[in-house]
Amino acid sequence: MNLFHIDKMEKKSPAKGVEMCSLNGERMTFAYFKLAKGSQVPEHSHPHEQIGMVIRGKLRLKVQGEEQEVIGGNIYHIPSDVPHGAVALEDCEVIEVFSPRREDL
Amino acid sequence: MNLFHIDKMEKKSPAKGVEMCSLNGERMTFAYFKLAKGSQVPEHSHPHEQIGMVIRGKLRLKVQGEEQEVIGGNIYHIPSDVPHGAVALEDCEVIEVFSPRREDL
Repeated sequence: MNLFHIDKMEKKSPAKGVEMCSLNGERMTFAYFKLAKGSQVPEHSHPHEQIGMVIRGKLRLKVQGEEQEVIGGNIYHIPSDVPHGAVALEDCEVIEVFSPRREDL
Repeated sequence: MNLFHIDKMEKKSPAKGVEMCSLNGERMTFAYFKLAKGSQVPEHSHPHEQIGMVIRGKLRLKVQGEEQEVIGGNIYHIPSDVPHGAVALEDCEVIEVFSPRREDL
């Protein structure tokens, strides 16, 4: 069984206060993020479609210039090539999935 | 912004004690499941690749005949057409993503 645990997966830090690990499938990438309060994911875009869910905490999400506070239980869809970024307003856990898979993660 | 909250999304019950809601993107489906202790997802398979993560609780997962207990923080990959099923050993929250998207969810 292809079974992993976030506590034992290799971690990366794409920005200060942001820690993530990810699993690549054939057609998609599944990523788990921890963001410390005050940390930021600068605005960026990619051709991969993205769906995210906040598991815990609160973020200010900016998608195509529109800002919104998101909390545990929120699910959002970010189409291909749409600029997006986030600021963690609390310590957060977030899941992000991408398709096609991210060869860069 | 394409923003939703699990508390307000339409729920389906694919099996007794199992409640789910899902969001379809272009290339993938993102699904959130609540499973009551003792509930079961009977063995099944589909051409969609699947990646899942247990958010909370404990399940006995069966993938291609191999059984394993999974807990909060476990991430698993189920390739296309591989038979799989689960029994909730505790009340659980689970995220499952599929690609290509599930037209049946």
